[in-house]
Amino acid sequence: MTVAPLAMFKPTICWSRNGVRLIDQTQLPRKTVYLTCPDVHSLWEAIRNLRVRGAPAIGQAAAYAVVLGCRNYPGDDLAGCHRHLAKTIRYVATARPTAVNLFYALDRMAEVIKSFRGTSVKELRAVLLEKAQEMYRRDQEVCRKIGRNGARLIKKGSRILTVCNAGALATVDYGTALGVFYAAREKGKTFSVIACETRPLLQGARLTTWELTRAGIDVTLICDNMAAGMMKQGKIDAVITGADRITRNGDTANKIGTYALAVLARYHQIPFYVAAPMSTVDPDLDSGDKIPIEERHPDEVRSIEGVFTAPRRVPVYNPAFDVTPAELITALITEKGILQPDRVLS
Amino acid sequence: MTVAPLAMFKPTICWSRNGVRLIDQTQLPRKTVYLTCPDVHSLWEAIRNLRVRGAPAIGQAAAYAVVLGCRNYPGDDLAGCHRHLAKTIRYVATARPTAVNLFYALDRMAEVIKSFRGTSVKELRAVLLEKAQEMYRRDQEVCRKIGRNGARLIKKGSRILTVCNAGALATVDYGTALGVFYAAREKGKTFSVIACETRPLLQGARLTTWELTRAGIDVTLICDNMAAGMMKQGKIDAVITGADRITRNGDTANKIGTYALAVLARYHQIPFYVAAPMSTVDPDLDSGDKIPIEERHPDEVRSIEGVFTAPRRVPVYNPAFDVTPAELITALITEKGILQPDRVLS
Repeated sequence: MTVAPLAMFKPTICWSRNGVRLIDQTQLPRKTVYLTCPDVHSLWEAIRNLRVRGAPAIGQAAAYAVVLGCRNYPGDDLAGCHRHLAKTIRYVATARPTAVNLFYALDRMAEVIKSFRGTSVKELRAVLLEKAQEMYRRDQEVCRKIGRNGARLIKKGSRILTVCNAGALATVDYGTALGVFYAAREKGKTFSVIACETRPLLQGARLTTWELTRAGIDVTLICDNMAAGMMKQGKIDAVITGADRITRNGDTANKIGTYALAVLARYHQIPFYVAAPMSTVDPDLDSGDKIPIEERHPDEVRSIEGVFTAPRRVPVYNPAFDVTPAELITALITEKGILQPDRVLS
Repeated sequence: MTVAPLAMFKPTICWSRNGVRLIDQTQLPRKTVYLTCPDVHSLWEAIRNLRVRGAPAIGQAAAYAVVLGCRNYPGDDLAGCHRHLAKTIRYVATARPTAVNLFYALDRMAEVIKSFRGTSVKELRAVLLEKAQEMYRRDQEVCRKIGRNGARLIKKGSRILTVCNAGALATVDYGTALGVFYAAREKGKTFSVIACETRPLLQGARLTTWELTRAGIDVTLICDNMAAGMMKQGKIDAVITGADRITRNGDTANKIGTYALAVLARYHQIPFYVAAPMSTVDPDLDSGDKIPIEERHPDEVRSIEGVFTAPRRVPVYNPAFDVTPAELITALITEKGILQPDRVLS
């Protein structure tokens, strides 16, 4: 059976002759627009403004940004190019602070640069592109493994809640949490998905329903504040979310609202799973309280799609992520298998 | 000291020579538009479409609707007018199903009609208007008592979370949950309010921030899914909400999302209060699972202010209310005092 999302649309992000090609997710579901970012700055802007988003896709974008930095370096001064790329890496690292995949990808690219023994910028460029493409293939493979591992948890007739978009659009083309759904569907399982809309930027309403509808998976959209009532009524059998960063002890940063769902799932005795590649694990942090949480512009909360719904100067608190402690997570679904969150590194 | 909201804007709803005058809350905060409803149907439409909303204000609108029905009855056939008003009452009762104040007000008006011993339609009209105005003055008085009783719970420097709008706009002019804030402020207390935006119709973002800003009360707007993270960080000291219906055992229906906040408050050991008039108590229902929960149009979730943010035909679940069980409610703040929810009728 074909892999559902691949059959439906082109990759979320890919390398092309003219630069990095990506679907502009800020325009979905109304318009399907592909952008080409010809240089590091335009790709930085695309990451910053969530044209490309989702921890694994951000990692891939960061890897490609380093390739672009090398490709656009004029001349053949290898030492100069090294300095230029060090600067590029520092710059790309400022695009968004929370998803560790961005830093993970930049670290891998920095290792390639450090261990490069060739003699020309052109060679370095080829080696960097090869590394980025290897990461691309690896993301595809990892997502499929996560999907297969997680599909075992989906029972016939299950109603699974998810938040934000941890789908094909959040990775190079298959997804983590939604990858579990695609894999379950490929196995012929019947189940349904409840998508939290995910204010303020509505990735659930805009992206997850779009993806799942295209894949022929039964999806119902709710506002974030409706999940608890559905749990109380016995209408949710499990929660599966993605992750932006997992610390050594299993604490998990993910889209704002995830922590509320984890507390509510515990209260209603519903299993709560996090689906994520091992590259989302940050071995440098002991616990979730160390994860930097991005705060975004107040107008994201005051307005929706450019329409102001609140007074224009009302003070706003707008964290993009929250941290779910390991003890609220039933299990992590990774490419290595289904792991206890506090044993992710063992 | 003057009562803050009264000093700021005209009553939410009032009787005028030309009909029932009300502020069209669907247009706030962008436009301050006052409507006059000259007949029962236009007032039914205003209730149905949330131009006037909030349980106490809906009750007042229903009382006025009966007056309008009588005023617009042609001729002086008293028996015919009685039949017409019985029909009017049944019709107004269909406007919205959850807030019991609507039925409470209609019952009071029906009692007036039943016990009427006069001889003309004109007299009946005067008696009905006097009853509706008495209810109006009573709502003002009750809100002030709720405010005074609740203000004792606000400690200096407290950060109080609220949801939807239980303010001057939800009552004839002062508010229940927000009435507590106005009373605390009149006592010179300093505190701050966190307003949940309250998807899908954003009464928190549109109405509560508007009211509190005008009253000079420090308010911060958040998305509904941000409350849990703030509780975890110790940034919320208490939750105060309104109510649409309270059953004999203290279970409380209120705006969708309230139940989630109650569970989250319990998990984080934060007190959770419901501020409501005794007219919100439904003595006919034993427990919250008997409360009819209004489900509204899917487009309220798919779109915001007419802008579609989700695929147009994606299935949606859109309950307007949920029920918080009495055991999650620390206390009810009523005009009778601060009551244990399971002892509301004793």
